[in-house]
Amino acid sequence: MSKYWNNKINSATPYVAGEQPKPGQKVIKLNTNENSYRPSPDCSDAIKTFDVGALRLYPDPECTIVAEAIAEAEGLLPDNVFVGNGSDEVLALCFQTFFEKKGNTDLPVLTPEFSYSFYPVFEEFYDLNPKKIPLREGLEINSDDYIGVPNCGIVIANPNAPTSRAISLTDIEKILKANPDSVVIIDEAYAYFMEPYETAASLIEKYSNLLVVRTLSKSYSLAGLRVGYALGSEELIEGLKRCRDSFNSYPVGRLEQAIAAAAIKDKRYHEWSRGEILKTRQYTTDELRRLGFDVPPSSANFVFAKPPACISAEKLYQNLKAKGILVRYFKTEGISDRLRITIGTMEQMERFIQETEKEIDDAKDS
Amino acid sequence: MSKYWNNKINSATPYVAGEQPKPGQKVIKLNTNENSYRPSPDCSDAIKTFDVGALRLYPDPECTIVAEAIAEAEGLLPDNVFVGNGSDEVLALCFQTFFEKKGNTDLPVLTPEFSYSFYPVFEEFYDLNPKKIPLREGLEINSDDYIGVPNCGIVIANPNAPTSRAISLTDIEKILKANPDSVVIIDEAYAYFMEPYETAASLIEKYSNLLVVRTLSKSYSLAGLRVGYALGSEELIEGLKRCRDSFNSYPVGRLEQAIAAAAIKDKRYHEWSRGEILKTRQYTTDELRRLGFDVPPSSANFVFAKPPACISAEKLYQNLKAKGILVRYFKTEGISDRLRITIGTMEQMERFIQETEKEIDDAKDS
Repeated sequence: MSKYWNNKINSATPYVAGEQPKPGQKVIKLNTNENSYRPSPDCSDAIKTFDVGALRLYPDPECTIVAEAIAEAEGLLPDNVFVGNGSDEVLALCFQTFFEKKGNTDLPVLTPEFSYSFYPVFEEFYDLNPKKIPLREGLEINSDDYIGVPNCGIVIANPNAPTSRAISLTDIEKILKANPDSVVIIDEAYAYFMEPYETAASLIEKYSNLLVVRTLSKSYSLAGLRVGYALGSEELIEGLKRCRDSFNSYPVGRLEQAIAAAAIKDKRYHEWSRGEILKTRQYTTDELRRLGFDVPPSSANFVFAKPPACISAEKLYQNLKAKGILVRYFKTEGISDRLRITIGTMEQMERFIQETEKEIDDAKDS
Repeated sequence: MSKYWNNKINSATPYVAGEQPKPGQKVIKLNTNENSYRPSPDCSDAIKTFDVGALRLYPDPECTIVAEAIAEAEGLLPDNVFVGNGSDEVLALCFQTFFEKKGNTDLPVLTPEFSYSFYPVFEEFYDLNPKKIPLREGLEINSDDYIGVPNCGIVIANPNAPTSRAISLTDIEKILKANPDSVVIIDEAYAYFMEPYETAASLIEKYSNLLVVRTLSKSYSLAGLRVGYALGSEELIEGLKRCRDSFNSYPVGRLEQAIAAAAIKDKRYHEWSRGEILKTRQYTTDELRRLGFDVPPSSANFVFAKPPACISAEKLYQNLKAKGILVRYFKTEGISDRLRITIGTMEQMERFIQETEKEIDDAKDS
């Protein structure tokens, strides 16, 4: 509390990110869903050939080189693309642009009960009326639960985090059709790890109320770059630009634009690192199940696993942390019996499984 | 208008930045106050030695290496520094953090009548009650006009844009003392071009209601990087962090942090490029006065000049544009008789003066 902060800041509940180790601290970091592989070598080339002198000039606010690379990859037009300072910024702009605040409407924004923990932060900060839709058996999102529920907007992470579960395009289409007056945001931060890969971007030409949000942080190994984007009808993209230009007109720097465009164009590397992660995810899932964990089939670069009865999720999280292995534990009722474990390299996951097996054995003995 | 945008976006008046030439278009660009010199050579070194593999990991949200470099330069502590995605983002967070919206208070935010044109955009977007304080003779800000006026916050650009005029630290201190319950923001985007250089940062230990905002875009030649910062009491900085973490926790990427820290540490280069610009500003001022312009003494990297009676500012702006020289013209009542001209290199300014002299001669003849 401070007399200098306004009411909103005094009462805000800011987002709490997964812990970041101090520089130099040696840990196996499986807690913030970063990619365990380096970015594409083309990113290094983009940096090497970058004209540093050009940094004296403002960047292109429309991020044309990035928007064009994305449009080409998705079979869309650059006017269907909005590029921002990470998908968190893009999502924040979405919540400010498409959803109506309390007082202006009674209608709520629908999100899955357990999902990306920034959504409720945005809802509170932008004074929206939230409505959490419970998950079904097996942590699944069921499209029926988003039909016939009055709302001013819908946000679904697909695959969902921290649950790792995906819904089908057929289900997404049902939701879009049933809510023609609401913007439906599909947050595809982890979509590239689906097997087989599916994207709601293929539905954009058909549904002007669909907005797909993506990030370069996960599948492109560029969490440290801060580039995310949205795909949608020109009408929705224009709304985002109006919001951006009321706040910060130049959110993506020149060097970031060059690196992002290079990463997006290197489709072969993107596909290769995905393949490695899917293999390691299978190994991790199999091993955890062998150790007695409940592991729902994951469509993301993490698993959401429930330890066997002999050890609590919280205790296992703490014991692994003491050994220098960071995983994510949510002290949230309903999911506090699970751990979200990022898929690292095979070497990291072997070490994680070894240490976890020791913990389970110790717990059984005591 | 769109049925998918909310009321706020449908009624917003977004910021309009100075025009950016298309890639490849050859112009003398004196319209957005970019620096005409390259960034410090240490920025190139920071890029060369940057570990691209580290981009797979999220950046340090506190931008510690940047905050430490700034704190060292200013004789402050890192806890007195907030680093963001350009000073536009930092200012947007300030307007959201320290000023109370209409309905919660009747008190207005005070700004000079003619100042940075993003301020009224923020005021509208964040639903604040604006109050514009007229300038005095010679486009000057007078501290007396900010004393005894009830308000919920004050924002003053020093030197002011587009007027180029500065106020003294003594005057700033008067305003701070007279408004102990309001946050007073001094936007020092152009402060390093004052002669002699003065900064309100020296008053931070004395006034917990003072926030100084800076950018690397101007004096550090890094408009294309997107790094800005705020300096203030721990209490104010903590408020900004609460706001940031309700919106976008990681606004500054890893590479930007490395480049920004390198630029800030190279004090000698910073001082050198300032010296070049001050020399060229003197030349430009003298020459424009010789041609009959009214040019108030500038404390910034631009001048705000009124052409002689034979030609209007708008006409001169258009004619120069046709010749490939971009300057900034504001079609705003009260300042539409002037042009804001960025100080470029000596070569650019000689060309600008030549072409302007021709225009004046032609106008006199006709």
